[in-house]
Amino acid sequence: MKIALCQINPTVGAIDYNKDLILKWYEKALKAGADLAIFPELVIIGYPPQDLLLREKLLDEAEKALQGIAKASTIPLIVGNTLVEDGKIYNCSVVCGNGKIISHYKKILLPTYDVFDEDRYFTRGKNPEVFQIELGGKNLNIGLQICEDLWDKDYACNLAKSLKEKGAECIINISASPYRSGRLLDRMDLIKTKVSQTGIPFIYCNLVGAQDELIFDGQSLAYDSEGNLIGQGKAFEEDLIFMDLEKANPLETKVESREEKIYRALVLGVKDYFRKTGHKEAVVGLSGGIDSSLTACIAVDALGAENVHGVSMPSKYSSDHSKDDAKTLAEHLGIDYRVIPIESPVQAFEQSLNESFQHTNSGVAEENIQARARGSILMALSNKFNWLVLSTGNKTELAMGYCTLYGDMNGGLAVISDLSKTDVYALSRWVNEKAGSKRIPVNSISKPPSAELRPDQVDPFDYDVVSPLVTALIEDEKSPTELIAEGADPELVKDISRRIRINEYKRRQAAPGLRVTSKAFGIGRRVPIVNQFVELNS
Amino acid sequence: MKIALCQINPTVGAIDYNKDLILKWYEKALKAGADLAIFPELVIIGYPPQDLLLREKLLDEAEKALQGIAKASTIPLIVGNTLVEDGKIYNCSVVCGNGKIISHYKKILLPTYDVFDEDRYFTRGKNPEVFQIELGGKNLNIGLQICEDLWDKDYACNLAKSLKEKGAECIINISASPYRSGRLLDRMDLIKTKVSQTGIPFIYCNLVGAQDELIFDGQSLAYDSEGNLIGQGKAFEEDLIFMDLEKANPLETKVESREEKIYRALVLGVKDYFRKTGHKEAVVGLSGGIDSSLTACIAVDALGAENVHGVSMPSKYSSDHSKDDAKTLAEHLGIDYRVIPIESPVQAFEQSLNESFQHTNSGVAEENIQARARGSILMALSNKFNWLVLSTGNKTELAMGYCTLYGDMNGGLAVISDLSKTDVYALSRWVNEKAGSKRIPVNSISKPPSAELRPDQVDPFDYDVVSPLVTALIEDEKSPTELIAEGADPELVKDISRRIRINEYKRRQAAPGLRVTSKAFGIGRRVPIVNQFVELNS
Repeated sequence: MKIALCQINPTVGAIDYNKDLILKWYEKALKAGADLAIFPELVIIGYPPQDLLLREKLLDEAEKALQGIAKASTIPLIVGNTLVEDGKIYNCSVVCGNGKIISHYKKILLPTYDVFDEDRYFTRGKNPEVFQIELGGKNLNIGLQICEDLWDKDYACNLAKSLKEKGAECIINISASPYRSGRLLDRMDLIKTKVSQTGIPFIYCNLVGAQDELIFDGQSLAYDSEGNLIGQGKAFEEDLIFMDLEKANPLETKVESREEKIYRALVLGVKDYFRKTGHKEAVVGLSGGIDSSLTACIAVDALGAENVHGVSMPSKYSSDHSKDDAKTLAEHLGIDYRVIPIESPVQAFEQSLNESFQHTNSGVAEENIQARARGSILMALSNKFNWLVLSTGNKTELAMGYCTLYGDMNGGLAVISDLSKTDVYALSRWVNEKAGSKRIPVNSISKPPSAELRPDQVDPFDYDVVSPLVTALIEDEKSPTELIAEGADPELVKDISRRIRINEYKRRQAAPGLRVTSKAFGIGRRVPIVNQFVELNS
Repeated sequence: MKIALCQINPTVGAIDYNKDLILKWYEKALKAGADLAIFPELVIIGYPPQDLLLREKLLDEAEKALQGIAKASTIPLIVGNTLVEDGKIYNCSVVCGNGKIISHYKKILLPTYDVFDEDRYFTRGKNPEVFQIELGGKNLNIGLQICEDLWDKDYACNLAKSLKEKGAECIINISASPYRSGRLLDRMDLIKTKVSQTGIPFIYCNLVGAQDELIFDGQSLAYDSEGNLIGQGKAFEEDLIFMDLEKANPLETKVESREEKIYRALVLGVKDYFRKTGHKEAVVGLSGGIDSSLTACIAVDALGAENVHGVSMPSKYSSDHSKDDAKTLAEHLGIDYRVIPIESPVQAFEQSLNESFQHTNSGVAEENIQARARGSILMALSNKFNWLVLSTGNKTELAMGYCTLYGDMNGGLAVISDLSKTDVYALSRWVNEKAGSKRIPVNSISKPPSAELRPDQVDPFDYDVVSPLVTALIEDEKSPTELIAEGADPELVKDISRRIRINEYKRRQAAPGLRVTSKAFGIGRRVPIVNQFVELNS
């Protein structure tokens, strides 16, 4: 009774491509002697399709693709697709086999929080369902689930138990569960709980690949009825995982370090964004600082050194070490590198604005002219050579609004926008450890962070204090009041909360950023711009 | 039995301010001899609060404000607020009176489509509810509804009928229904249908004021049991509307032209965005074209001429008429006007990029340098003087991607981004008719549109054809296949569809835009950037 988990990477909207991909992996499973092949949630359409689900033609084409897949089937396969009934759309796990569609299970729990909006599109199924499937000459009662059906604790139900009560001998959950740091252990704990509650095996097939801000990590799982891990898919790669429920060997859990996981997630995020939007080459502004250095490393590992262009754009305030560090980084990475000074456009802007700015003091306006000159140069290179600009801001800066809209925020993809400054340091150190060399110049890691937009400027934050507070407010969703109760400086907490609130307008216009935490700035966090809710008044 | 509809303009998150506003209008109603005062949906918190609903403190403060309002009450009042029960949040219509909270009705139908996300936050109420309220010494059985409860046709229920069956003698619906062109007539038709089905009066109290992209139009309504209009609130203004169900006089429906409505909506949108984010002055880049001219007019009517700054930023490609038209417009509007040529920063950029660009042909990269120089100048003025930049792009351009990211797309608010090019012309003509003068220079209206980024350039679209097709695809949600079946040019439809799809990345970074149609680019339209769904393949 050989079961194959086909952990594949579809593209949203590319129905024909996805169908061919499914059939290719089905064929592989078949050749290896599988009795059942399992594919992830909504794999024919890609996930999340968002408003594409409102397009009738898409749903029709997905249905046709499903029929084609079913027609080509011999051994059973389970695949995620939509089903339209009476004008309502269901998110389904479809069992096919022997050239036919055998049955549809309709997802019951529709996540509608954070990055999920399933209530917007789908009608919920009513009943847990068990289907009898013939596997290698034996009948097996399979309880089907889709993704959120596993995460039932917030919905006052226990769907796994219901399936067991209905006679399920095994549960198969097909998922499109996006990565965030620590997610694998959450899933393992939850599945083991379900196994201990039901005493039957649990098989979990997850999507892999990135889609806009989301990175699906794969890491499919299978547990036997004793709660032993008997299958684990690779992280951030397509994978074909086989297991035999009757004669499985318990596996050791593969665990990579937190830094390695996040880094690999971001590499996949960049790779897939480029591949799936038809881009090949990237350009990164290199300041000699740690953010742009880490971003360039990720880009090189995602796209190849030959496809990454580094640009240093020094001003009169740029220190020698910044220029040296940028150059050293480019040499270490083996990427194309050029220096385009911004002094001349900055001076031209200042002269143009001279009359308007007379009798004013130099300040943020003048600083931002520099950031925007750099942003314009990167975009000019992008427009000319079809290089996609990667923006390099981190989450702590984005929270505090310490970034220039239409300047350093420019870019098609924000690679590290969900990494706190603390994590940027941790990942950069990990990069060098892993490489066994100073891939990122040590100086970029050790020097005090500075935007270098005026003489002797250093970032006006103690990141060791601010970065964890921002994380607590955004990712842990703690309130300012709680943080103060836990001992944080009230004035600082008040200042950070205020900055987060008043800078929403900047983030609303930010490039899409790759999500690696429980709460990223992006589609999963919807805070009004016009917002006068001030938790700490005085 | 005098009933007061208090059509007021709260601010999201400003609980204390909103509470005071409610009490002030309650007092007005009381002084005028009202027996009942009615306020809109979620008026204590403001609508839509989005993720602020996940903040416990906000819900606590709203509850306290409600208690304060109840405590101050004598005659009954009905007010929208949240209710937290067993960790679940309900969207409620709360009846208060005689110093107490009397009852809560929980909203049943939670809109979760387009700009609405109520399933994300609220738990739905189970039952239609009728409450007996003493009004001027008489008891009246009132059936309560909240906004979407009226729009029940897509939910396989008839809540008005259920209320009637439960003994309601009158239905009171409190709403936060955003404006879109034609919405008043939709509401009137629907309410009249409900009145004819139930034979009881229907009172509809709507929110007024703008919040981010949404503009609530007020236009509260009341119908007697015969279906006669007996109360109508002003459009786009706070208003206190009185009616007596026992001795009402039928009113004539007030109808303004489509152009006037949309124009007034945009004026309120600009006004409230500035007021509620604490801005006072605006800056607009004036090209002499129709889009920036219309935007400047709206800004003047919203903020006052003394608070609007116009900047002409000519290049070597700018025609004399463009410069003249911009200046004439500024004179007509009586706004501050300055000319800041971009030639010098553009040349400086070109020199800086000279080495990188050698052996390439001049094209989009060079054109965008000009647009970005303009965008940077506007932002420098914004940073220096705290003027908010208004972006001037229209919906047709945004759809086609005929706009420069970090260039002419720069701005805190996109004033006319939900107006098709056709509507831009219609509103501009209306502006001049209304003013009885050439407020917008006739030349700006009559000349062929051009970005003037290269010699003799004109916009590469026939807007008379393209603008309605974009409207059909986006607002009417027609498919490309349907449009072709209706006789549109297949190649053109294919090209437009492709442009809409591949330019999603630009719109994702666009300024929030004021919504005046059934489907705007913005929070109500969620289309993936990575999107390979091509409806017309060849």
